[in-house]
Amino acid sequence: MGRTHSNAFLQTPRYFDVPYEPVLKAVCARNADRVKSFAANWGYESIETDWRALVARKDIDLIDIASPNDTHAEIAVAAAGAGKMVSCEKPLGRNAAEAEQMVEAVETARVPNTVWYNYRRVPAVVMIKELIDQGKLGRIFHYRAQFLQDWTISQDLPQGGEGLWRLDVGVAGSGVTGDLLAHCIDTAMWLNGSIAELTAMTETFIKERKHTLTGKVEPVGIDDASAVLCRFQNGSLALFEATRYARGHKALYTLEINGEHASARWDLHDLHRLQWFDHRDEGKLRGWRSIHVTDGDHPYMKHWWVPGLQIGYEHTFIHQFADFLSAAAGNQSASPTFRDGLATDYVTDAILKSAKTGRWERVTASATATAVKAVGQQATV
Amino acid sequence: MGRTHSNAFLQTPRYFDVPYEPVLKAVCARNADRVKSFAANWGYESIETDWRALVARKDIDLIDIASPNDTHAEIAVAAAGAGKMVSCEKPLGRNAAEAEQMVEAVETARVPNTVWYNYRRVPAVVMIKELIDQGKLGRIFHYRAQFLQDWTISQDLPQGGEGLWRLDVGVAGSGVTGDLLAHCIDTAMWLNGSIAELTAMTETFIKERKHTLTGKVEPVGIDDASAVLCRFQNGSLALFEATRYARGHKALYTLEINGEHASARWDLHDLHRLQWFDHRDEGKLRGWRSIHVTDGDHPYMKHWWVPGLQIGYEHTFIHQFADFLSAAAGNQSASPTFRDGLATDYVTDAILKSAKTGRWERVTASATATAVKAVGQQATV
Amino acid sequence: MGRTHSNAFLQTPRYFDVPYEPVLKAVCARNADRVKSFAANWGYESIETDWRALVARKDIDLIDIASPNDTHAEIAVAAAGAGKMVSCEKPLGRNAAEAEQMVEAVETARVPNTVWYNYRRVPAVVMIKELIDQGKLGRIFHYRAQFLQDWTISQDLPQGGEGLWRLDVGVAGSGVTGDLLAHCIDTAMWLNGSIAELTAMTETFIKERKHTLTGKVEPVGIDDASAVLCRFQNGSLALFEATRYARGHKALYTLEINGEHASARWDLHDLHRLQWFDHRDEGKLRGWRSIHVTDGDHPYMKHWWVPGLQIGYEHTFIHQFADFLSAAAGNQSASPTFRDGLATDYVTDAILKSAKTGRWERVTASATATAVKAVGQQATV
Amino acid sequence: MGRTHSNAFLQTPRYFDVPYEPVLKAVCARNADRVKSFAANWGYESIETDWRALVARKDIDLIDIASPNDTHAEIAVAAAGAGKMVSCEKPLGRNAAEAEQMVEAVETARVPNTVWYNYRRVPAVVMIKELIDQGKLGRIFHYRAQFLQDWTISQDLPQGGEGLWRLDVGVAGSGVTGDLLAHCIDTAMWLNGSIAELTAMTETFIKERKHTLTGKVEPVGIDDASAVLCRFQNGSLALFEATRYARGHKALYTLEINGEHASARWDLHDLHRLQWFDHRDEGKLRGWRSIHVTDGDHPYMKHWWVPGLQIGYEHTFIHQFADFLSAAAGNQSASPTFRDGLATDYVTDAILKSAKTGRWERVTASATATAVKAVGQQATV
Repeated sequence: MGRTHSNAFLQTPRYFDVPYEPVLKAVCARNADRVKSFAANWGYESIETDWRALVARKDIDLIDIASPNDTHAEIAVAAAGAGKMVSCEKPLGRNAAEAEQMVEAVETARVPNTVWYNYRRVPAVVMIKELIDQGKLGRIFHYRAQFLQDWTISQDLPQGGEGLWRLDVGVAGSGVTGDLLAHCIDTAMWLNGSIAELTAMTETFIKERKHTLTGKVEPVGIDDASAVLCRFQNGSLALFEATRYARGHKALYTLEINGEHASARWDLHDLHRLQWFDHRDEGKLRGWRSIHVTDGDHPYMKHWWVPGLQIGYEHTFIHQFADFLSAAAGNQSASPTFRDGLATDYVTDAILKSAKTGRWERVTASATATAVKAVGQQATV
Repeated sequence: MGRTHSNAFLQTPRYFDVPYEPVLKAVCARNADRVKSFAANWGYESIETDWRALVARKDIDLIDIASPNDTHAEIAVAAAGAGKMVSCEKPLGRNAAEAEQMVEAVETARVPNTVWYNYRRVPAVVMIKELIDQGKLGRIFHYRAQFLQDWTISQDLPQGGEGLWRLDVGVAGSGVTGDLLAHCIDTAMWLNGSIAELTAMTETFIKERKHTLTGKVEPVGIDDASAVLCRFQNGSLALFEATRYARGHKALYTLEINGEHASARWDLHDLHRLQWFDHRDEGKLRGWRSIHVTDGDHPYMKHWWVPGLQIGYEHTFIHQFADFLSAAAGNQSASPTFRDGLATDYVTDAILKSAKTGRWERVTASATATAVKAVGQQATV
Repeated sequence: MGRTHSNAFLQTPRYFDVPYEPVLKAVCARNADRVKSFAANWGYESIETDWRALVARKDIDLIDIASPNDTHAEIAVAAAGAGKMVSCEKPLGRNAAEAEQMVEAVETARVPNTVWYNYRRVPAVVMIKELIDQGKLGRIFHYRAQFLQDWTISQDLPQGGEGLWRLDVGVAGSGVTGDLLAHCIDTAMWLNGSIAELTAMTETFIKERKHTLTGKVEPVGIDDASAVLCRFQNGSLALFEATRYARGHKALYTLEINGEHASARWDLHDLHRLQWFDHRDEGKLRGWRSIHVTDGDHPYMKHWWVPGLQIGYEHTFIHQFADFLSAAAGNQSASPTFRDGLATDYVTDAILKSAKTGRWERVTASATATAVKAVGQQATV
Repeated sequence: MGRTHSNAFLQTPRYFDVPYEPVLKAVCARNADRVKSFAANWGYESIETDWRALVARKDIDLIDIASPNDTHAEIAVAAAGAGKMVSCEKPLGRNAAEAEQMVEAVETARVPNTVWYNYRRVPAVVMIKELIDQGKLGRIFHYRAQFLQDWTISQDLPQGGEGLWRLDVGVAGSGVTGDLLAHCIDTAMWLNGSIAELTAMTETFIKERKHTLTGKVEPVGIDDASAVLCRFQNGSLALFEATRYARGHKALYTLEINGEHASARWDLHDLHRLQWFDHRDEGKLRGWRSIHVTDGDHPYMKHWWVPGLQIGYEHTFIHQFADFLSAAAGNQSASPTFRDGLATDYVTDAILKSAKTGRWERVTASATATAVKAVGQQATV
């Protein structure tokens, strides 16, 4: 994630007319050799190996958190306390309790903030949001989303360690629920409003794996798969599913929303395409349209190439960072804010709870966000 | 359904080498004018307007039930009691209690029987069954299926009446759960074994509709949408969903099964295609294969056209009837038997119950079927 | 082909309200045992082993020709001479000279006639015709079609013999040009008008194959592949290609037409789908629509199943036969007539000529068809 | 194109371990205000408004040509003469005569060179090259490619002027033949070897357009559409087509190659997918695989994101520039070299000639490239 964020910091001003020129002042990580190499590659001016030192620096206006989940809350609270703007990888906290502290910190400090639920910045997904807001779907009946992967099926994969902290429940907080399903939930609530109640099941298919830190075979604490039935506040029904055991799918995040008049579908494996069905089309000619979202009048796309030429994954981070800089110049946060991130944590907490109780659980409602106020005059990273 | 069944009776001996030559002796319906016209068109030798008269005839060996759900049990029990073979449209009963009587009747009478869950005879679906039985998928982790339609979204549609008895809960027994989800459940249990427990939600989006019989606006008793989380006996997780409110989908029955080594997908809108992913393929060349199931070595396809030329919906009934005739000659029933149909009714009953209780419900296990014994020597319709 | 035709004779009156009830009076083939078996299976009343005897029978009103290409002309001329209606498999003649005799015969005799270019009766293809006729495409710029197969790649396949007469140039007349490309040409001229001029290349990849009749390895006379550039009378440009050496394609007949305002695509591997792009759609929402051509208001589809349930290959023959019976009742021929079939033979002749000369060749224009006049009062087969 | 090239200069060292660190020394264009703005945005150290001044500078090691086609030859010859490495947008020259001078210049000067036929660097296309080289396709029978656009259908579009020089034959040299078809030809010869002979047609649908420079309506000199039949040296047949009048297609470059054992397909609208059919797969399970080319072992992809996350259009330029820098460090040119670009110009010249003569034309064979020798020690842009 350090790479996609750094790429966004560098690329955003080349393609977007933003109010700040990001300056890559410092990058921080525990391993000095590796952080030096990273800094050299990406052009950071300096390095730190203790994040507290980074937070203490006066020449830093924005702290970006791309470290494992168990570090999010502590860093974010400190950064906000030091008056820094904060951008944080998802999920916001390992649970809602952590996320509440983070929201409290940024709202008290009134610092611009955002959570990197980057799929809100896929042009095709933004189009769905616009179509819903224009009323083109009418009353919503159904929402369904899934995030399917297959990279942890092997019993030989250890938990923890290099690139595998997502399998260590202590670090990650949960398994696919916080990692993958959280993306589905964030987009869903952005598009379709709040979730009222849900029932869920989770499963850990491989019960024990070698732990990298202890060197021993230990119980696996994360959920390998997670599935949810729920009702939104608007009366629509939804199904959500995430798993790392769906053979054949690499990162297949799909979503579909069915309204009275129209429906939309999208998936991450062809992120530049929007599937759109409009019942108001002439009857005999109704069909699902495959819209190649690469025209100049499509969201964000005037900044890129000519029609027909697609963008990739990392562009979603550039879009979000461009929006963040614009918002920050007006002393605002960019969607999704920490408060939005907390709302997702309330849902994932309810999912994990329901998976234990076997009952329908109501989702804690998030209060309305307080508008942030002005921060420093220049955004530097 | 009368047309697809009659078509099967006529077409089967043209394309399959079957042990019996079906003779269309009689067709029965309440409206004499319409049944005469139907008989003339399809070549039935005679008509009846009272099914009891049909059952009483000595020249009839097989009673085929294609009437609304509320008639299934009574006719089937009488037909079996008269020693007739019985084929019945799905769902078997409006609920498991009715279905239990029907199973009791055919098993006591030892008459060959089958339920028209016709999608078990789609060549691509049969291939999935074969691949699972060959062990090509390995341990199963996930199953998901949905049956999406959009034809009842209009508030103006009445309940009951010509072609609309499916909206009348008294006749149909339930809404999409018994009509659409039952197909998904039947295929799923055939492919993946028994369902142990489930939790579900249902919804009736349009609460009142004009009733054709009374002429008044009355509460709607059916479920418009139904969604289920469940666990199979083999430890795999599943999601099921059916609705008539998914704008843009006509009859989109889709299913996917994910195993340790391979996965398969299929949908009814392109029923002649099988999607297949095999992790044992050379790594760089792994991908989902779109198999055009029209070759002579594909299930049932040697009876049809040359490779590349697809079959349609009604062929699935022909396949099932060919299998039924072959089974009947050996005094056997054809899959799915009435007992298999009862197993599906146990699941749909549990779904409807869970939708009310909000709890996980265990599914009643169906006893093993008793083998049927010999019936008459000639099958006539 | 005998099966698809016989199926059409039987199925048409079940699904369409036609003015004649076809009676399967006789079927003819040289091998008495096999024709007996065929007659028994399909319900033909009698058999013949000499087609001249069939033509001589007074109780036959329609002669259907489903035998190899080298028999078409002689039988059709005799049948027309005997005052029979004639339906003939494509291509009409092995070349235009044969086809001219056939047209002369049916037009002199004024007997209803048709050529089984069955893809004109695919509902999705009919929709393209309707959309063009309604002016929805505007000025046409491009047409392209291909018919790709891969079943003759093996060197071991003999020429001639059971099911392989298509590889014997003496019987077939040509290779893929007359067999596959002729379909593309027929549809193209129906949709886009006459072809003015063309240049072409053909290739025989496997130069020698064992001949079944002589038992010797002999030069292969057919074209294995054929490709054409051409200009239509309306100024549009076109590419055509047919081959039996396109590994991975079973019977992939695809066509696309690009107009000023809209474009349409279709392919035989998913024959129930129409791809449609309309530039007049709202700009941001323009995309190719995948229309599932299974609704009651789609061409021919009110005769089949409910929306979402697809038909197959053989249905195209039923549609053509229904149209033929309706036309015959009005003493008309059904599209494509023998004269239409001749027009295609003029094109395929020009293709084969250009492939030899290396030059652009003008296509012989077919005169306007003379309307046929009344024939017998009852159509029987 | 200035943006995609500049992006490549900046991004390449972030993602690839290259032997040189590109330094953006200067950018040149005639309009001083605009070039200043461009330089500021992309971080060029200085600007020039006369390319001769750029070529004369001692601190420049590589001249990159991204200006209209009529400037390519003069700049490239001067740059090579000054001992600079040269990278040039495609097509190399407006015709082969210009391209020959350019090849002569870079080969005499022995300077590393490359032509930006960037689609050779699409990972899926590279995979096709590898599969062919591994012999997985066997003998090649067919190749077909098309490049379909629809952006010039409006009569109102002028020729020449801002962004429209591609419609001015004096500047562009030709229409779609040099602009779009050249891409198809370059990839085809890379994958399938030399083209021996061809026949072609071109068309200008809109005969007159307002010319921006003169302000008058003038005849259009470019070809709006171009289509080709040809034979490769290896005996395979091919069809090529390019047009800007295919309504509904934005930049649909598609290619397919059919071999004895396997076939591959690819298109630019989903550039991260490879379609692959292997006849050696188990018979019943043969089908076209849709390979999502985003794994670490796919060409170039270990430099990007985790499996499932796609890259976009501009990445192809990064890949080519990374290869160019690596080649240049060894005093080599990167594929496609200027000599490769000349080979494509020989083909496009033959196409335009055949379109006039109506005859098959043989393609001039390009001599084998001379290996380039060492250049300067540091590559700067």
